[in-house]
Amino acid sequence: MMNMRLILIGFGFIGKEFAKVLRDKMSTLKEIDKDFKIVGVADSKGYIYNDNGVNLEKLSSISKLSEYQSYKSGESALKLIDEDLCDVIVEATPTNIKDGEPGLTHIRRALSRGIHVVTPNKGPLVLAFRELTNLAEKNGCSLLYEGTVAGAIPIFSLVRECLRGDEIIRLAGILNGTTNYILSKMFFEETSFEIALKEAQERGLTERDPSYDVDGIDAACKIVILANALMGREAKFEDVERVGIRGITQEAISLAKKSNYAIKLIGTIDKRLEVAPKLVPINHPLCVHGTLNAIHIETDLAKEITLVGYGAGKETVSAVLNDLITVLKRNMGIKN
Amino acid sequence: MMNMRLILIGFGFIGKEFAKVLRDKMSTLKEIDKDFKIVGVADSKGYIYNDNGVNLEKLSSISKLSEYQSYKSGESALKLIDEDLCDVIVEATPTNIKDGEPGLTHIRRALSRGIHVVTPNKGPLVLAFRELTNLAEKNGCSLLYEGTVAGAIPIFSLVRECLRGDEIIRLAGILNGTTNYILSKMFFEETSFEIALKEAQERGLTERDPSYDVDGIDAACKIVILANALMGREAKFEDVERVGIRGITQEAISLAKKSNYAIKLIGTIDKRLEVAPKLVPINHPLCVHGTLNAIHIETDLAKEITLVGYGAGKETVSAVLNDLITVLKRNMGIKN
Repeated sequence: MMNMRLILIGFGFIGKEFAKVLRDKMSTLKEIDKDFKIVGVADSKGYIYNDNGVNLEKLSSISKLSEYQSYKSGESALKLIDEDLCDVIVEATPTNIKDGEPGLTHIRRALSRGIHVVTPNKGPLVLAFRELTNLAEKNGCSLLYEGTVAGAIPIFSLVRECLRGDEIIRLAGILNGTTNYILSKMFFEETSFEIALKEAQERGLTERDPSYDVDGIDAACKIVILANALMGREAKFEDVERVGIRGITQEAISLAKKSNYAIKLIGTIDKRLEVAPKLVPINHPLCVHGTLNAIHIETDLAKEITLVGYGAGKETVSAVLNDLITVLKRNMGIKN
Repeated sequence: MMNMRLILIGFGFIGKEFAKVLRDKMSTLKEIDKDFKIVGVADSKGYIYNDNGVNLEKLSSISKLSEYQSYKSGESALKLIDEDLCDVIVEATPTNIKDGEPGLTHIRRALSRGIHVVTPNKGPLVLAFRELTNLAEKNGCSLLYEGTVAGAIPIFSLVRECLRGDEIIRLAGILNGTTNYILSKMFFEETSFEIALKEAQERGLTERDPSYDVDGIDAACKIVILANALMGREAKFEDVERVGIRGITQEAISLAKKSNYAIKLIGTIDKRLEVAPKLVPINHPLCVHGTLNAIHIETDLAKEITLVGYGAGKETVSAVLNDLITVLKRNMGIKN
């Protein structure tokens, strides 16, 4: 099939950044599929649609989708999916780990119609990983979700494309940049947890309710997706034993530091699934600081590989773009 | 095309390790190509060949190829290539950066006959990168060389498959495990360069002439391949400005350490190509120790990604196997 038509669903932080990337990288995309176009963009209150392609220059310059001239208020993204107006969606609505909505319905509906899905939205993958991957397989379409875990770190495609013969035995990772920022601040500046948390909040690194980050909920969601995707588990959120970082004192961090350890919130996939503060030797590759994330995998052949990068923020568009290019290449029958 | 026939050329350290991997991972390979088989193995003095497949159990148990019963002494690997007895070769003869031989002739001959090549042998790629990649393209076959740089770190496939939309702006890496072992020993144990070098030699980490490692020759070779493969350069070995680690004193390392820096032999690809000792902040992801290698890339979208892993030794077979699986998948028309 040629002429892939994309619909972008969600016009928040990632959606807007991705619109700019689509503008800037259009020549790369058209090298793969010369007729590729973005035919629609939806937010929670309406959409724009143009079967000749939306104006990406205009789209990149507006802060609300409703500023786009042909915006249709009161319409749902589901209408664009149901009327077979697209071949691939980028689902970038806000993460909701309670019921996965509205992303879960968007993704289910698209896959059941054979429409490829690229998403950085964790909620649907945490709640319905096996259902959605089975649905994609059954309908012969791609479901790619590189951006759901550790932002710009391409962990899923690394394992899929670069370690094709290796078996993953164990995984450990710093999977939440906010808690890593807090713990790094406590480590380097000897502040208390409360002060470090306050600074993270002032920098806009946390949700209004910081529990999602500091109690390890976000990291546990990522462990669920990693375990299901990379190690064939049937993991659910409840399977992750979880301890956050509220109890970590400056005293504990100072004591660890004297012995050349840092305290990090580590997610592990081993026999058990766990998110908990752990002592990490400061010279270990996993011991990265600030808002960086890191994932350390143990395999049978390569033994140990660590990937470090930005786990959130606009760098995530790298992962979304890589997934989209993968979909276009598969569609065009380009093997690599 | 089905029924890929592999010939392994070179039965030294990597060749023997790879024979074991072929034995252990045969079911993985046959899942992709059910008739895949290893029809021959050559060393510098002869070969074994069996069009029904060689006995991998036997092959994995011998230390010299001539111990294999049907070993034909005095025959050349080129004969197996010229008689169209194989579809893919794994070229694992010893690295020779002077004239690339015998690997260069093996690879040239195979590619010119449309035979796919997988190799962890740096020499031919350093000396003739563009000639060989052009030859592969012209003849519609794959030339994959993941194992040539940083052993088990899958840097080439990472960029090719996981950062498809990113542009690589700059690269810096610890690309030689021996010098990293020496510098780490000087850093942690406060030994002199001479003592650390001696211990590296006793552990079998260096060539008989340590110049290849300590003068940055090996790292410079890797910079040449990386620059050509990932950043479209036309780099030659002579283009790399090169300073080794012989001049690094314990005093310099101690002084750096007091300011929270380590001295590392860093290869960089920027406007210039360079291998030289550099101060690296001990908290930077690139600052890994022991025999580990690390590669830090800066890109337009993901901004910074660091990969850490083993740069030499038997872990390299992970890269060779990944390349071989890529060849089999491409051959079978499997898109990913």
